[in-house]
Amino acid sequence: MSRCSPVACARTLAAAAFVTLIASAVADDGMWTFDNPPVDLVKQRYGVALTPDMLGRLQQAAVNYGASASFVSKSGLMLTNHHVALSCIEQLSTRERDLTSKGYAARSSAQELRCPGGMARVLTSTGDVTATVLQAVAAGTSDEQRNALRKSAIADLESRCAGSTGLHCEVVSLYSGSLFHLYRFKEWEDVRLVFAPEYQAAFYGGDPDNFVFPRFALDFALLRVYENGKPVQSAQHLKLADKPIAEGDPVFVVGHPGKTDRLQTLVQLKTIRDTLMPLQLASAQAQQALLRAYSDRSPEAARQALDRLFGTENWLKAMRGEYAALKDAALMAQKEADEARFRAAYAARGLKGDPWADIEVATARHASRAKELWAVGYGYHSLFDHAGKLVELAYERVQPEAKRLAAYRDAALPAIERRIKADAPIYKDLEVARLAGSLREARELLGDPHPYVKATLAGATPEEAAERLVRRSRLDDAAARAALLAGGVKAIEASDDPLIRLAREVYPMRRELARFREEQIDTPIQQAAERLGQARFTLYGSALPPDATSTLRLSYGKVAGYDANGNATPWKTTFGGLLARADSFDGKAPFDLAPSLVKARAQLNPRVPLNFVTTADIIGGNSGSPVVNSRGEWVGLIFDSNLEALGARFVYTDAQARSLAVHSQAIVYALEHVYGAHRLAQELRGQAAGRSSNGMP
Amino acid sequence: MSRCSPVACARTLAAAAFVTLIASAVADDGMWTFDNPPVDLVKQRYGVALTPDMLGRLQQAAVNYGASASFVSKSGLMLTNHHVALSCIEQLSTRERDLTSKGYAARSSAQELRCPGGMARVLTSTGDVTATVLQAVAAGTSDEQRNALRKSAIADLESRCAGSTGLHCEVVSLYSGSLFHLYRFKEWEDVRLVFAPEYQAAFYGGDPDNFVFPRFALDFALLRVYENGKPVQSAQHLKLADKPIAEGDPVFVVGHPGKTDRLQTLVQLKTIRDTLMPLQLASAQAQQALLRAYSDRSPEAARQALDRLFGTENWLKAMRGEYAALKDAALMAQKEADEARFRAAYAARGLKGDPWADIEVATARHASRAKELWAVGYGYHSLFDHAGKLVELAYERVQPEAKRLAAYRDAALPAIERRIKADAPIYKDLEVARLAGSLREARELLGDPHPYVKATLAGATPEEAAERLVRRSRLDDAAARAALLAGGVKAIEASDDPLIRLAREVYPMRRELARFREEQIDTPIQQAAERLGQARFTLYGSALPPDATSTLRLSYGKVAGYDANGNATPWKTTFGGLLARADSFDGKAPFDLAPSLVKARAQLNPRVPLNFVTTADIIGGNSGSPVVNSRGEWVGLIFDSNLEALGARFVYTDAQARSLAVHSQAIVYALEHVYGAHRLAQELRGQAAGRSSNGMP
Repeated sequence: MSRCSPVACARTLAAAAFVTLIASAVADDGMWTFDNPPVDLVKQRYGVALTPDMLGRLQQAAVNYGASASFVSKSGLMLTNHHVALSCIEQLSTRERDLTSKGYAARSSAQELRCPGGMARVLTSTGDVTATVLQAVAAGTSDEQRNALRKSAIADLESRCAGSTGLHCEVVSLYSGSLFHLYRFKEWEDVRLVFAPEYQAAFYGGDPDNFVFPRFALDFALLRVYENGKPVQSAQHLKLADKPIAEGDPVFVVGHPGKTDRLQTLVQLKTIRDTLMPLQLASAQAQQALLRAYSDRSPEAARQALDRLFGTENWLKAMRGEYAALKDAALMAQKEADEARFRAAYAARGLKGDPWADIEVATARHASRAKELWAVGYGYHSLFDHAGKLVELAYERVQPEAKRLAAYRDAALPAIERRIKADAPIYKDLEVARLAGSLREARELLGDPHPYVKATLAGATPEEAAERLVRRSRLDDAAARAALLAGGVKAIEASDDPLIRLAREVYPMRRELARFREEQIDTPIQQAAERLGQARFTLYGSALPPDATSTLRLSYGKVAGYDANGNATPWKTTFGGLLARADSFDGKAPFDLAPSLVKARAQLNPRVPLNFVTTADIIGGNSGSPVVNSRGEWVGLIFDSNLEALGARFVYTDAQARSLAVHSQAIVYALEHVYGAHRLAQELRGQAAGRSSNGMP
Repeated sequence: MSRCSPVACARTLAAAAFVTLIASAVADDGMWTFDNPPVDLVKQRYGVALTPDMLGRLQQAAVNYGASASFVSKSGLMLTNHHVALSCIEQLSTRERDLTSKGYAARSSAQELRCPGGMARVLTSTGDVTATVLQAVAAGTSDEQRNALRKSAIADLESRCAGSTGLHCEVVSLYSGSLFHLYRFKEWEDVRLVFAPEYQAAFYGGDPDNFVFPRFALDFALLRVYENGKPVQSAQHLKLADKPIAEGDPVFVVGHPGKTDRLQTLVQLKTIRDTLMPLQLASAQAQQALLRAYSDRSPEAARQALDRLFGTENWLKAMRGEYAALKDAALMAQKEADEARFRAAYAARGLKGDPWADIEVATARHASRAKELWAVGYGYHSLFDHAGKLVELAYERVQPEAKRLAAYRDAALPAIERRIKADAPIYKDLEVARLAGSLREARELLGDPHPYVKATLAGATPEEAAERLVRRSRLDDAAARAALLAGGVKAIEASDDPLIRLAREVYPMRRELARFREEQIDTPIQQAAERLGQARFTLYGSALPPDATSTLRLSYGKVAGYDANGNATPWKTTFGGLLARADSFDGKAPFDLAPSLVKARAQLNPRVPLNFVTTADIIGGNSGSPVVNSRGEWVGLIFDSNLEALGARFVYTDAQARSLAVHSQAIVYALEHVYGAHRLAQELRGQAAGRSSNGMP
């Protein structure tokens, strides 16, 4: 037996346990915070030094724009995906000027169009406030009290920070609430559309090609951030790589991955698989069906529904991939083995309590009211949702912050207000169809006698109720919404808008459910997860990355093709491949070429790379993330994962799972040779704007 | 309750049972004989009339050349796959003139090169001899006697037919021995190589792309059949279609599918899955490994081993697909349900006996000696195999036909002699490596004390034994083999060739095993299968197609893309797609373009179709089959299945399973625009040979 001091023995034990726990994670996994970047792993695997300078530059150039984006010129030019910019593009479109199907290229600064409701922000700095939060919580004697104390401590930290810096401040929690960090953001509300290719070029192959590689999508858009009416000076921006990437090259992805559930317990995963996801799958399928039926009414209806349909089909296909992963016996067996090892290490360390059992109890509560929690609401983010938000905001904000529903703490209010006020077009026919679908679903799930069903239908059919509610509502007028927002509780209670009246009736039910969820489900789970998180820290430190939480993250990996069950899949595609795919389907939709590509076809160089794949670990929210090389220069733009990567919500693998990117050369090449947007190509290259060679923008 | 006469009731019952039995076979399944073509099914599904005239033309134009082929000009020009012609191409190649890697185009008739050992034949007519065979068998009182009587009746029918017609005659059995048909063939031994593209163009993508679609293979070759030193006049040949096919078009495939096991019982399938296939998989993997290691020695070694390596990897990948199908719980459940229904119908009809139980007993015998049956032999079709065939032929042919091993009945002898005498190059280094591998495998399976292992190794290592046996053998000289063949038993017994001496020692073991297999396994299974076949006939008639048996068959289906687990797969590929695939792999092997394609690249029309897929039901042996349209004109050339179709040995499906073909336009286009072989393009078009535009053939 070897001899060691108690501390050294504990270290050895921890190291051994760590090796066992991450035995299945042998490769490029993890979405790492900038506070705890994987410097050693990257050095060891790729021989690349992640210097503080490079990390700082990447952080300052990374933009949160709903999903991810980045500054790519010194004048605030911002690169993201077409599908991230799509709601702006749609909102700027009209029946007469359809920027979605026709694309858009601003010929000059004056033609750059402001996006309604858009907001861009950069994470300027962070600080660890774990001690402050935990200290505040420690004074509590019940779960409810601790929950209130935590919320109040967080709100206090956020408002003090905002007051002293003039920045937007948010406390984020990591490792299931084991760490609390204060994030400080610089924000801009003036974001303008500069360039978008046609939808058919950006989303080539449509739903069939979504989550598929080989892929041929020009899924990019250019926006510009303005400050005081002028392009913002973005000193920290990414430079375009001179040298194209090659297979095997290390790459880094910077962005805002939304949510992973890799640290959830087995019981939680089984509940997602057996109870929650089937509800969501059925809902997504029903929504897809109703949006398709609506789109079939006319080309104009199809235009109106496009963004929603894209979002729904994307959600559905992604969820099907996740569902397949959870149904995969091997994956669940791996999770089971991981948990058994963690439990054994937890017990061996003599840690108290049984957080797994606490989570099991709370999860069972969730399952018991899953249908209500899913169906009682303001209908598929429809016009009714504006009513619901107006009502909730009015009643919640008049209460002390600690008593409010968590979603309405002060720091969250500006974003809610901005969404309510955003003057995006609302199509009443579409609203009727969507609200009817939502009411139908609720009735199916809850049954006629349920108070929510009684309140929403009032004896009518879902279709009749939706018709009545939507047609007579004035909430499609942004000014009417702004007036209700300004008028507070008084205005809400005086309103006879049918959707506001219904929202008032639904609000108590929603509040009871939200409270139930907060107190009976989320808080106990959070507290148990906190104990698991602390145990994890005790055992492994921050050698394991935290789950994704929509905060800024760094992933790393390499450019690599793969074997898709016997089908050798290359690391990249080319413009020639795009033309060939269109030809091989005889140009039939959704494999037809966008008009600009048809026009440019004869002059295109078929060898120019179009899309490529990497092993970097990403998830929804990373859309629009820049891919950079080992010098921090941008070489691509993340826009998707392949189907094999959809299990990434629960576990990272790299045999077949890949993140998909638009090649930087494809973007510059398309701007010049397909769209004649030389001004922008020059700006991306960091050249002074010269005369356009053919008079095009 | 409905009322019907006993006969009508029986018919109703049979029809109902039939519908149930084929409930899973809703689509284009079946490899049908020309005696019983699926006229009604094709009429009903595709509105196409399979007229006797069209069927007759297809039959007369279809050629058996090892696998499948067809006459495509009036002057005996024969189209088949490059991989079917590969052994001829390799045998005509030398180190200095490598037709495999460089391709070959005969500039004139004089440059057409005779294939060693090649044989082409056309099925001229058939007749039903079931009554004669069954009548002869009926006189037997034991299984052994019945077996001998069947063999003797078949031999008699074959020799009388040959005597009266001058044709080659063979009795083939269908529906597991329920029907016996006499097939009459016109045969030609003078087959010459006319055109072959480079191996890299024919087998583009190599093993990774094998059994994969989308695919980009120019897998065709042209041969010419000669008679009396002149091109044969092939009045019945396929005409090139004027009009290209489109997605959804009905098509027909004519060829020689080797073997399906769709009518085997569940026990047989489980034995294949659990006992036989694991042996074969391990053997194939070992052979692949040794051939790869041999190929790594030098480019010349790689050239020598190429044909074997191709065959082995092809076999291995196909077997893996079959194995996966047998491991598929859904497929086995379907088989189980089908068998349960058939058993119930069998019992309901009051049919006697339990053929399933008889098959189970015989199958268990097979499993009990599976290792010996697999490993005791003359080594991987190597040089040792020539010795084994010489020894067996000498000893077997001196016995009365009824006493011989089944493989040595008179009708089979010419083909065996032809293979022994064929003057194909034999590389001793390669032979040593392969024989050593075979001896290694036998020792591992059987153990050192087994008589076969003792005889073959004689105390040495497999490598030493192979070295000693092969180096001193003279059987690589075709003349030496011919002399032994001519000398019969006397010459064999006088020979001191080490391989002949060893073969003499092994022969009694092989004979005992062959007898065991014939009497204890094959005959009882055949007889039980016969009873099942007769029951099937009683219940369903010939509405179900028979299993494939390498005889001429007709399949039908349509041109159709498919959804490969979320990946939309088009019905065709193009030359542009080929270039794009090469580019997307940066031109790395095996995705590099063949030299002729590199040279022609700039002038190629990327939209010309290259490969396409159909739902027609095929299996190994269909390689080289023409695909014809509803007018019987050729539109493509079968060369592969996709991975999803490899379960076709056991069950036909059409959701993802596809047969792969080279498009007829690709063949003519490549001849003209890549290889400058205008003479041949004109001949395929049925035009008189004109002056070649650039002096090329």
